[in-house]
Amino acid sequence: MSDAYAVRRERLREHCSASGADAALITRAANVRYLTGCAPCGATLLLTRERALLALPDDLPQDDTGEHLLSEDVAQLPVPADADTAMAAAEAASRLRVQHMAVEEHDLTVSRHRAVAQLAEGVSLRDLAQAVERLRVVKDEHEIADLRIAAEIADQALGELLESILVGRTERHLAMELERRMIDHGADRAAFPVSVGTGTHSGQEAHQPTDRRVEEGDFLTVVLGAQYRGYAVSTARTFVIGAAPAQWQMDLHRLVFRAQRAGREALGPGVPQHAPDQAAREILQAAGHSESSPHPLGHGIGLEIREAPRLGPADMGKLDNRVPVTVGPGVHIPGKGGVRIEDTLVVRPLEEGGPELLTITTKELLAL
Amino acid sequence: MSDAYAVRRERLREHCSASGADAALITRAANVRYLTGCAPCGATLLLTRERALLALPDDLPQDDTGEHLLSEDVAQLPVPADADTAMAAAEAASRLRVQHMAVEEHDLTVSRHRAVAQLAEGVSLRDLAQAVERLRVVKDEHEIADLRIAAEIADQALGELLESILVGRTERHLAMELERRMIDHGADRAAFPVSVGTGTHSGQEAHQPTDRRVEEGDFLTVVLGAQYRGYAVSTARTFVIGAAPAQWQMDLHRLVFRAQRAGREALGPGVPQHAPDQAAREILQAAGHSESSPHPLGHGIGLEIREAPRLGPADMGKLDNRVPVTVGPGVHIPGKGGVRIEDTLVVRPLEEGGPELLTITTKELLAL
Repeated sequence: MSDAYAVRRERLREHCSASGADAALITRAANVRYLTGCAPCGATLLLTRERALLALPDDLPQDDTGEHLLSEDVAQLPVPADADTAMAAAEAASRLRVQHMAVEEHDLTVSRHRAVAQLAEGVSLRDLAQAVERLRVVKDEHEIADLRIAAEIADQALGELLESILVGRTERHLAMELERRMIDHGADRAAFPVSVGTGTHSGQEAHQPTDRRVEEGDFLTVVLGAQYRGYAVSTARTFVIGAAPAQWQMDLHRLVFRAQRAGREALGPGVPQHAPDQAAREILQAAGHSESSPHPLGHGIGLEIREAPRLGPADMGKLDNRVPVTVGPGVHIPGKGGVRIEDTLVVRPLEEGGPELLTITTKELLAL
Repeated sequence: MSDAYAVRRERLREHCSASGADAALITRAANVRYLTGCAPCGATLLLTRERALLALPDDLPQDDTGEHLLSEDVAQLPVPADADTAMAAAEAASRLRVQHMAVEEHDLTVSRHRAVAQLAEGVSLRDLAQAVERLRVVKDEHEIADLRIAAEIADQALGELLESILVGRTERHLAMELERRMIDHGADRAAFPVSVGTGTHSGQEAHQPTDRRVEEGDFLTVVLGAQYRGYAVSTARTFVIGAAPAQWQMDLHRLVFRAQRAGREALGPGVPQHAPDQAAREILQAAGHSESSPHPLGHGIGLEIREAPRLGPADMGKLDNRVPVTVGPGVHIPGKGGVRIEDTLVVRPLEEGGPELLTITTKELLAL
């Protein structure tokens, strides 16, 4: 595995040389982790032609670095806990006689960039832009294996919840319980705060759980994701409480189900990024539903819960093989409620069976 | 309360005029909340001489804005959910013929700053620096009231935990339970991930809970904080498991207790920021304990869990009245464990009884 990190760093070195930079300063946590295995801890990676130097806080408990820092060929530069590791790395760049250093201008604030420029004496700075994010788009099978486990964890937690009594419990309690269950099943943590929306709150994308209690006849929307070894998945399901769903609930659920399936089935290597969104959106719009603002149908997911590529109506570019993405349309009717159904899938060619579904909990309208 | 926000915005306007800016672009979430009451949601505030314009995502569930957005005299500019509200606000600044706009260079990335500069046609940008953070240092009694409630919630959760059986439970479970209890008692959320460290993990400042189980004879360090209406507190306690603490445990606990008390008692309006740290550090060092890197003894706390002023050995400046700070020394002996004791207090003059202790859970060495 540690070679995998070395290979990634080599690819970044090639990108830098090609753009005339002899070093890169990596500050974005997910990018540092991708290139070193070091879990987020405010570390900064200085990558020169010959070296990989990781500036990191000197007070990390062993199991915060030790466990994750698999890459032995990365030299460590301990920095006082309340100092900025980017500054230590910038000084090192100057000592190492770096000439042109590419920095992540989408991550560094203007103030930190100014300080880096001052400390990196004799070094000219340029923008690395999202070069590492682009390297991260296509996952290797190690990464996909971690995503599979993250998905299993989320499915297990959700499955257990469905077997418990829901009526009378609050959105907040259900959300907390799902987070606890994911951790019990081995997640690093919840990939994002679990969203549980019941009744009029159902169907929203990022509803913040309230003290509203689940009632007979409610729609119940759960949006959750686990993080395992840094890799996150996201999934959403909508259920109905009580034995007899109303007709409008069955109709709305079937509609969103069809739209989500159309989005999933549109995934494939070489497919335009906007195609899955279009496939799903047409079905919703044909039924007279269009969200106030065009939410993208989904997005890439991995070390960050939202990363490239974005699957929005206006997104150019094509999908690649082995890219994990979310597909999650939803309809929310203000004052009434709604349905959201989301999966995390890996783009695969038809020869390999097409898109690989990671989050396998049933998408049928369960009456709980 | 909504006037309080208007007063804060007026103070910021005065600061801007004095520095020759006719508008400010506020992107930092805690600062937007301080000036508008709007809970974090990616909103951006454009403050001109005449107006306050809040650019915010158009898909916020009502109770995410409605509840918190107390300030009626703030005009809202809805922005598509996946767009950057800072860009919408920048365009508005151009439309409103703003000439000199102060932006938060410590919050904007280089990339966003560049995009803001492009969209804010005819507007010259300058650095607002930490002007709003400075306004936030001294709290009003509304803010302190919220901090008191946050502290009560943390104390309640901790008190309940102490009444339960701890031996055999994992750090992760105890941390999850504390987060759940804080939410049960009305917290918005945990102010930061609860840290529970037992045995060799005890006494660390930011230990990430593991599956290690609490054992007879362990030190148990708990670091937790609640957030209430946006305001956070932080507290740490160290207990011993089992009826018979070892001599070294009693000695170490007494030492850290004395250091923490010395730090608390050094607090006061007009006191140098480094004085409390010095008072505590001298006691630890006299006993032969000095942390690898000089952690500050504490820091300001409020809408952010770490804000100005910092109470470190090298920090200049003096403390003001009505400034909430943390005071939390700790000693960790690698391979053995340690003790950390932290409170959140409000700086008050002696005439008012001196520092106001918010986190009142006993600091004695309880044997659980």
